[in-house]
Amino acid sequence: MHTMGENGMKAYREMETSELKTLKEQLEEEYRGFQAKGLKLDMSRGKPSRAQLDLSMGMMDVLRSGEDLRCREGIDCRNYGVLDGIEEAKELLSAINEVPSDHIIIYGNSSLNVMYDTVARSMTHGVCGSTPWCRLPEVKFLCPVPGYDRHFAICEYFGIRMINIPMTPDGPDMDLVERYVETDPAVKGIWCVPKYSNPQGISYSDETVRRFAALTPAAEDFRIYWDNAYNVHHLYDEPEKQDVILEILHECEKAGHPDMVYKFTSTSKISFPGSGVAALSASLKNLEEIKRQLTIQTIGFDKLNELRHVRFFHDLDGIRVHMSRHAAILRPKFEAVERILDEELSGLEIGTFTRPRGGYFISFDSLDGCAKAIVAKAKEAGVVMTGAGATYPYRNDPHDANIRIAPSFPEMEELEQAARLFTLCVKLVSAEKLLAERGAGA
Amino acid sequence: MHTMGENGMKAYREMETSELKTLKEQLEEEYRGFQAKGLKLDMSRGKPSRAQLDLSMGMMDVLRSGEDLRCREGIDCRNYGVLDGIEEAKELLSAINEVPSDHIIIYGNSSLNVMYDTVARSMTHGVCGSTPWCRLPEVKFLCPVPGYDRHFAICEYFGIRMINIPMTPDGPDMDLVERYVETDPAVKGIWCVPKYSNPQGISYSDETVRRFAALTPAAEDFRIYWDNAYNVHHLYDEPEKQDVILEILHECEKAGHPDMVYKFTSTSKISFPGSGVAALSASLKNLEEIKRQLTIQTIGFDKLNELRHVRFFHDLDGIRVHMSRHAAILRPKFEAVERILDEELSGLEIGTFTRPRGGYFISFDSLDGCAKAIVAKAKEAGVVMTGAGATYPYRNDPHDANIRIAPSFPEMEELEQAARLFTLCVKLVSAEKLLAERGAGA
Repeated sequence: MHTMGENGMKAYREMETSELKTLKEQLEEEYRGFQAKGLKLDMSRGKPSRAQLDLSMGMMDVLRSGEDLRCREGIDCRNYGVLDGIEEAKELLSAINEVPSDHIIIYGNSSLNVMYDTVARSMTHGVCGSTPWCRLPEVKFLCPVPGYDRHFAICEYFGIRMINIPMTPDGPDMDLVERYVETDPAVKGIWCVPKYSNPQGISYSDETVRRFAALTPAAEDFRIYWDNAYNVHHLYDEPEKQDVILEILHECEKAGHPDMVYKFTSTSKISFPGSGVAALSASLKNLEEIKRQLTIQTIGFDKLNELRHVRFFHDLDGIRVHMSRHAAILRPKFEAVERILDEELSGLEIGTFTRPRGGYFISFDSLDGCAKAIVAKAKEAGVVMTGAGATYPYRNDPHDANIRIAPSFPEMEELEQAARLFTLCVKLVSAEKLLAERGAGA
Repeated sequence: MHTMGENGMKAYREMETSELKTLKEQLEEEYRGFQAKGLKLDMSRGKPSRAQLDLSMGMMDVLRSGEDLRCREGIDCRNYGVLDGIEEAKELLSAINEVPSDHIIIYGNSSLNVMYDTVARSMTHGVCGSTPWCRLPEVKFLCPVPGYDRHFAICEYFGIRMINIPMTPDGPDMDLVERYVETDPAVKGIWCVPKYSNPQGISYSDETVRRFAALTPAAEDFRIYWDNAYNVHHLYDEPEKQDVILEILHECEKAGHPDMVYKFTSTSKISFPGSGVAALSASLKNLEEIKRQLTIQTIGFDKLNELRHVRFFHDLDGIRVHMSRHAAILRPKFEAVERILDEELSGLEIGTFTRPRGGYFISFDSLDGCAKAIVAKAKEAGVVMTGAGATYPYRNDPHDANIRIAPSFPEMEELEQAARLFTLCVKLVSAEKLLAERGAGA
C-alpha cells in the first residue's frame, strides 16, 4: 500500500478555496483537451495484450496433423474418454497449483466455470453429504473486499448472502473471518485470491494461511474457495521480488482439516485466456464427490487442448520461462501507471494505490465518495475503467472509493494516456468534492 | 424394426427338448472356443473409430502460428470475450441444427454438459421465472424407452422421477406423452433423440413432431429436451435413404408454443468426440434467460476451437461431404453386424433388431429375461456390450430384453468376431431359458 509521498505538491485539503477553484477550472480545461482527442481505451478487465498472446502462438503448431495425438497412457486424445484429465496435464497443472498430481481434476477452459459448478453442486446436492444449500433458509459467504466481481456475481446469482471482510496488507481480517466461520453455521464459504489478490495484489502472509488452515467451522460443509489465479504471475524475475505463500492444501492437512479447501487454477493468463485449461485441487474425499458429479455432467473435457498445453510448456520450468516473458511485457506497463500516478498525484492527498509485484491489477482508493464520479468522468473522455463498486459485493462500495486499474491490455502509449486522463479525473472530482464540502461547489 | 426372417431355420420354441439340449451343448462348445481366443473387444459406447478421427486431422492445421486468429467480427479469438459464440460458428452450428443463426448459443466440447447445465439451472432457478424445481415436492421427466443412458443419469442425479414412454416406429407413444404432459404439472420435461434415435435409430414421423409442437403442457416450465445428436449422421448418401424430420423450433413456433423446446447439438461425432463444439437452440426468450446465467458461469467458451471448426468445415456443404466420409466407414460396419445377425439368428425367433439408416446404434431385443445373461456371457468371452438395462431409467428394463449394439469403434475383423460371439450368446442364453421354462434346465 502506498500513500502519495511528499514531492513538494500541496495537498488539496490545504488549499484555499479560491486556489482550489482556479485549479478546478484549469483541470476542466485540461479535461476538455482530453475529450477532444476522442480516446477509446479499455482498462476495465484483466485482459492480456496482443503481444502477450503472441508468446503462446507456438502452441498452435505442436499438434499438427503429422503428430501422434495419444497421451502418455496411450489414449487417443481425439476420442471420448478420460474424465478428470490426462496424466501429463495433471502433472503440469498440479505443478502450477503446487499440489500432488493425484489431487487434481483437469477441466475445460474456465476456472470461473469450475467455481460456478462447485457452488451450483452445493446448492443442489450439498457438500460431501450435507444438506443441499437450496433447502437451507440462508447461506452466507465471506467476501474479502475489495475483491473479484465475478466471485460475487456467483453468490448473487444463487442468492447467497455476502458479508464484507476488510482486506489488510496480510490478507483478509482473520479475526473477523474466524468469528464468522466458527460461530455461524450459515457461513459456507469464503472467496480468496491468496496471491497477488484481485485487485490489490496482496499476497497472504504465512500467519494468515495458517489461520485459514486452523479454522474450525461451525458448518461441516464450509469450504475455503482458494482462487489460485496468479500463482506464477510474477512481474519480476528476481526471486526476492516474487511473493511466496504457504500451500493451503498441505496446511489444511497438517491442521487436521484436509477437506476444508477447494483450490482453483487455470492457464488462462499463461496461454490463451479463451482457450486455456482450468483445474481444481482438493482432498481425495472432495475430489471423489466431484467426480461422481462429473460422470453425470460430461463425457470429459478437451483432451487435445490439455495435450497441446503439455507439448508446448512441457513442465514447470517451461511455465516459468514463459511467465518471465509475460512479465517483460507487463512490468513496464505496471511501472508506467505507477510512475504517472506518482507524478500526478504525489502529495495531493487525494488517493492511494497499491504497487503489486504480480497479478493483473493496481487498486486505487480515492477520497470517499469519489470513485463513481471518477470512473464516469474517465468514461466520458473515452477511457473505460472497471465499474466503481465492482470490487464489492452487490456493487456496493460503502466508501465509494475503490477503483480497479487493469494495465495489461492497452499498448504502452495508450496506457500512458489513459493513466494521465485517470489522474486528471481523480484531481477534478476530488477538487469538486472538496469545494462542495466547503459549500463552494460549481 | 426387423423380425428375423424365414430362411429355413427352425424356431427354438418349436424344437423338441432333447433337440434343444443337444443344441445347447454344441453352443457351449462353440462358446468355449471363443473364450479360448482371448478376445478383448468393446461394443459398449458410440465411439468413432480411429479411421473416422483421422478424417478430421486437417483441423489440426488450420490455425497454425502464421494464421490470423481473429474471427469475422475482428475479435481476437485467443483472448477473453464473446459469451455465446463467434458469428461464423453460430452460422455453421445453426446450419447443422437447422435453425436461424440468431437462435443459438455455442458452448464448449460437450452437449451432455449443456443438457446437464440446463437441468441444473432449472433446479436452482426454475425456467423463465417459474418456481425453482428444488423447491417442488416432485419433478418428473418422461423418458421414451429404450433411450440414452446419460439422459437418464442426469435425471437420477437430480432426483427427478422418470416415467417410461414406449417407443413406436414413429417415435414416442404420443397418446401417453399428451396424457402426462397435459394433465400432470409435475412433468417438466421429456428426453428426445428425434433422429436416428439412441439406441433404435428411429426418426420421428411428421405427425409425432407436430403432436409434440401442439402439446399444451400443464406446467408452464415444461420443456422438450430435443437432443439433435445425429441430424447429419446418415449411413447412406442416397437422399431417399436419408431420414428427414420436421424442424421442431419452427413447428413449436407455428403451433404457438415457441418457448417449449431446447434443441441440443454438437460436432462430437463430426469432428473429434473429445474436442468438438456443442450448441443449444431455443426461442429468443429462452436464450436470453440462459445468457443471463452464462454471464455468471463463464467468461466464454473456447473460441479458437470454434474458429478451428469453421476454418476446417466452412459450411454445411463441407459438413455433408465430411459426413459422407464417416458414412463410408460406418456403413459397412452396420451392414456387417446386420448381416451376421441375419445369418445367425434368422428364423430362430429369439430376437429382433433395428436396421437404422443413421446414428450410432443397433437396438437388439432378446426374449424376455435374457438381456442381462447375454451381456454377461459376452463379457466373459471378452466382448463388452452396453450394460443390459442401461437403455432404461434406473437401469431397469422391465422385460430384461433390450441390448444396445455400438458397431462404430472396433475394426471390421474384430467387429465381425464380436457380432458372431454376440449371436452365439443370444442363442445359448435363449436355449437355456427355453429349457428352464420346460423344467429341463442345466
